[in-house]
Amino acid sequence: MGAVKGVRAKRMPREVREQQMMDAAVQTFGRRGYRAASMDEIAELAGVSKPLVYLYLNSKEELFVACIRREAARLTEAVQAAAEPGLAPDRQLWAGLEAFFRHTAENPDGWSVLHRQARTHGEPFAAEVAAMREEIVAFVTALIAAAREGTPAAAGRGGELAGRDVEGLAQSLVGAAESLAGWANDSGGLTAKEAAATLMNFAWTGLGGLMRGERWTPR
Amino acid sequence: MGAVKGVRAKRMPREVREQQMMDAAVQTFGRRGYRAASMDEIAELAGVSKPLVYLYLNSKEELFVACIRREAARLTEAVQAAAEPGLAPDRQLWAGLEAFFRHTAENPDGWSVLHRQARTHGEPFAAEVAAMREEIVAFVTALIAAAREGTPAAAGRGGELAGRDVEGLAQSLVGAAESLAGWANDSGGLTAKEAAATLMNFAWTGLGGLMRGERWTPR
Repeated sequence: MGAVKGVRAKRMPREVREQQMMDAAVQTFGRRGYRAASMDEIAELAGVSKPLVYLYLNSKEELFVACIRREAARLTEAVQAAAEPGLAPDRQLWAGLEAFFRHTAENPDGWSVLHRQARTHGEPFAAEVAAMREEIVAFVTALIAAAREGTPAAAGRGGELAGRDVEGLAQSLVGAAESLAGWANDSGGLTAKEAAATLMNFAWTGLGGLMRGERWTPR
Repeated sequence: MGAVKGVRAKRMPREVREQQMMDAAVQTFGRRGYRAASMDEIAELAGVSKPLVYLYLNSKEELFVACIRREAARLTEAVQAAAEPGLAPDRQLWAGLEAFFRHTAENPDGWSVLHRQARTHGEPFAAEVAAMREEIVAFVTALIAAAREGTPAAAGRGGELAGRDVEGLAQSLVGAAESLAGWANDSGGLTAKEAAATLMNFAWTGLGGLMRGERWTPR
């Protein structure tokens, strides 16, 4: 991106202009909602003409799908990049949660598009988000499965923490993270780090441990 | 309801007929989706004429809102009735989770209306579900707050498990339950009891405890 610095708007490369349109679209869809957002508004915010927006993507629906895909890919990448395979299980989870809450806090419009707008305006949008969600659940499932290798849970009475249990735990964790991120962004009183710490304590220490006064801390 | 047994359909009291229409509407909306569901189909399934359905509720939209409200009230009541205040915190949570998963498993169409249909078709439906969700979060918040009374968590370093932490934990728990119920009903391979046990282990024992081979069991 550094290479285009100082280049005048007119001579901006296509991909930069496209990103600006997408940025404007995510902001507009995220803040005003899918129905209320207008292509005029998006074009104005992006500093381009409306025909140019339509030239790039044929319809408001297509533009919205493109926004969902871009934001889903960015969120998934942020989480996956954070969880280094070499770390201890709890550190991996902590790194993933921190990345998740940091990303959703720094991109509230993108998170609103994924968590609220894409789900509340029917198909094909809901299917796009469902696909991203499945990818994240699969990633968390693999993470929990890898974490239990070599632990008492893997060698326990008949290997109780079986595949289906692990996927159930992953579904629980992802649901908890979605819910908490929505609340943190709406209520505004919770930083990304605080949200990650709350969920880490919930998911790792558990309410039972918390009642006993235990806490999970990074160090 | 026992009193109307044997009474011919024609002479059925208004409230019974209305319940039949609502049952038919929940089933149709839950299985076919809000858009695809037709008033003809609902009337036929309820065994009444279409004008009668419109006489009862003016539009498909109003009928859908009535379905959301009925299903939300039933679910909330089921959860609240289960958690007896006299029980130990973990037993209360277990009772509430069992009731939640039993209710959503026994009423998959109602759960689909609340969890999927109402959220994916814009306002005013999403607002109806949001209101129910807030009520459940408030209930779980109160439950966790009451549970920590008299525990080391309440007397801990500066009363760490403060109000905001407790609400964050409640948001996490509710999100986890929603996610797991959706998965259990879709995948079909998990009984209500298994889903409740998975979430109880996740929420109470925590992943850290599970990795050490711990399990929460009803007795």
